[in-house]
Amino acid sequence: MALALSLGKRGEGAVWPNPAVGCVIVQGTRIVGRGWTKPGGRPHAETEALRQAGRAAKGATAYVTLEPCSHTGKTPPCSQALIDAQIARVVIACTDSDPRVSGQGIAMLEAAGIQVEIGLWEDQARADHLGFFSKVDQGRPMVTLKLASSFDGRIATATGDSQWITAAPARRLVHAMRARHDAVMVGGGTARKDDPSLTVRDLGISRQPARIVISKHLDLPLGGKLAQTASQIPLLLCHAPSADPQLVKAWQGIGATLLPCAISAGQLDPHDVLQNLGNHGLTRIFCEGGGGLAASLLNAGLVDRLIGFTAGVAIGSDGIPAIGPLGISRLASAPRFKLHSAQTIGPDVLHIWDRA
Amino acid sequence: MALALSLGKRGEGAVWPNPAVGCVIVQGTRIVGRGWTKPGGRPHAETEALRQAGRAAKGATAYVTLEPCSHTGKTPPCSQALIDAQIARVVIACTDSDPRVSGQGIAMLEAAGIQVEIGLWEDQARADHLGFFSKVDQGRPMVTLKLASSFDGRIATATGDSQWITAAPARRLVHAMRARHDAVMVGGGTARKDDPSLTVRDLGISRQPARIVISKHLDLPLGGKLAQTASQIPLLLCHAPSADPQLVKAWQGIGATLLPCAISAGQLDPHDVLQNLGNHGLTRIFCEGGGGLAASLLNAGLVDRLIGFTAGVAIGSDGIPAIGPLGISRLASAPRFKLHSAQTIGPDVLHIWDRA
Repeated sequence: MALALSLGKRGEGAVWPNPAVGCVIVQGTRIVGRGWTKPGGRPHAETEALRQAGRAAKGATAYVTLEPCSHTGKTPPCSQALIDAQIARVVIACTDSDPRVSGQGIAMLEAAGIQVEIGLWEDQARADHLGFFSKVDQGRPMVTLKLASSFDGRIATATGDSQWITAAPARRLVHAMRARHDAVMVGGGTARKDDPSLTVRDLGISRQPARIVISKHLDLPLGGKLAQTASQIPLLLCHAPSADPQLVKAWQGIGATLLPCAISAGQLDPHDVLQNLGNHGLTRIFCEGGGGLAASLLNAGLVDRLIGFTAGVAIGSDGIPAIGPLGISRLASAPRFKLHSAQTIGPDVLHIWDRA
Repeated sequence: MALALSLGKRGEGAVWPNPAVGCVIVQGTRIVGRGWTKPGGRPHAETEALRQAGRAAKGATAYVTLEPCSHTGKTPPCSQALIDAQIARVVIACTDSDPRVSGQGIAMLEAAGIQVEIGLWEDQARADHLGFFSKVDQGRPMVTLKLASSFDGRIATATGDSQWITAAPARRLVHAMRARHDAVMVGGGTARKDDPSLTVRDLGISRQPARIVISKHLDLPLGGKLAQTASQIPLLLCHAPSADPQLVKAWQGIGATLLPCAISAGQLDPHDVLQNLGNHGLTRIFCEGGGGLAASLLNAGLVDRLIGFTAGVAIGSDGIPAIGPLGISRLASAPRFKLHSAQTIGPDVLHIWDRA
């Protein structure tokens, strides 16, 4: 199952709206098939592993990181494929809460006389499939919030100088993290100030994650890098229904996808923004700020994982803060996260936190 | 030498104005003497180790973390004691830059026919003796700046709620760190707001580090915890020469030591403050903020070691910053530190940085 989980992670960021599943088929003491969900979400992991195993699948054990599907979608149900291949035993890390599957995949297998075991490495599998479960259960993608700051929590000097706070190894890791998510997201202020392309660079990958900008008024540079690449790499713009229709048209014209979202307390409602992104099929979002968007997501309780890079530099309180105002007076009501891990990366510190 | 260094660290915080030295005497393959500078700075490490070794010191090798002294101060010179004990070989981690010793201790030993080797574990020894060398070379103590903050660099909410950002294991470690320094230092704002006692608690130690408050106008609570304990535990107040003489008298009356310091650009000059503290004999200072004092020390380039505790909580930019304004526009001119180590401590992250 550890191998299946590891294989499953290969699909992260590339298989949405499907889950990134891993599957290993073992005949006696020999691995006869290995599969993971392929880019675009098909073929499924089980299909791949069964194809590799061929006739060796008969009487074998299949280890799958998620309950095999039971419904005919764009592919035939995997449970049926396992039955057809005469698999003897299926070990499943966790059940699928998708109402089209939930328990029915297991029921199909058991009805066919296959021995089914559930729960091996379940915690790890639930963590790996967090984005998929988030979308199925709450209708929204999971959100990873990345903050790369000075050790006093600043992302730029007062005059906006931000290149570079962290060193090359941390910045390279950020590109790898982008590649493991379905989309990279920033606020409009960051898009205007930094003119980022939000692409994955220097890692030799071909598929790029989608880019998302949260911009109430769509006041973004039509000549910027995001606009220039909108026809090649998906660009999603979340904006207020009241945004200038001319701008909506202009952005649509260059290939962007426009998502009008609800307004709440004068700002784009972060819940509705994420619901819209979930409806679009996204399961894993990597948010890179700025401070306003970070504060909005944190205050709404929508951050699932927090990734901090801390550099050995002091910028001072006149610098730009990583997180905007949260309006918190009592510490007990401040958003808390649980430490996942901390390590050094080049000359910087990497610390990862999960929703408490 | 590793053992000698480890023994030497036992004296940290307790031996000022002397260095915390360690000494191990080895006869053949047997350790016959172990010593470290005792509280108050005497006896010296060599004296202790030689006393333990007794006659076994004859023909033995002595490992010392710092060049043995050559001058008669409150104790006779250690070099002479090593000669008298007929030690055959002395291995020294690093030479002493104190002009009363510098090379003369080694010269004395060599003149007596003792084989001398220098430089074993020198980097570690120089780091351990940083406070002593700082005082000898620059006339000021070394400064460790501790910042315990939310992951966005805040030390309290806008309304001042700061209990607790970090958890018990980190707070306990802070007490252990206080105990390893000669003095604990805070700014006047922190002394007014938190009414701290700045003592080491719950670690079963008897000797307390001195307490230092930097307060231009001496506008500190005369009924506070620092005042109440001033007769038992040293309390040093650094203030402007213009401070109210009545207040000076009142604080002297309850046992505080008053250090008038120079003013520069309307504020207490951090260089002069540290020179005064160095003249008072202090070699290792543990600064615990607040943001104004931290900024003043960082801007003056006076922070030797930075210790960060990061908690899994977001406070937002309306919270109180760990470091005040530094007036930096270009990132290249921001104070940089070199990563020493990073680790988890309970639910928090501890990261330690040294002057770059």
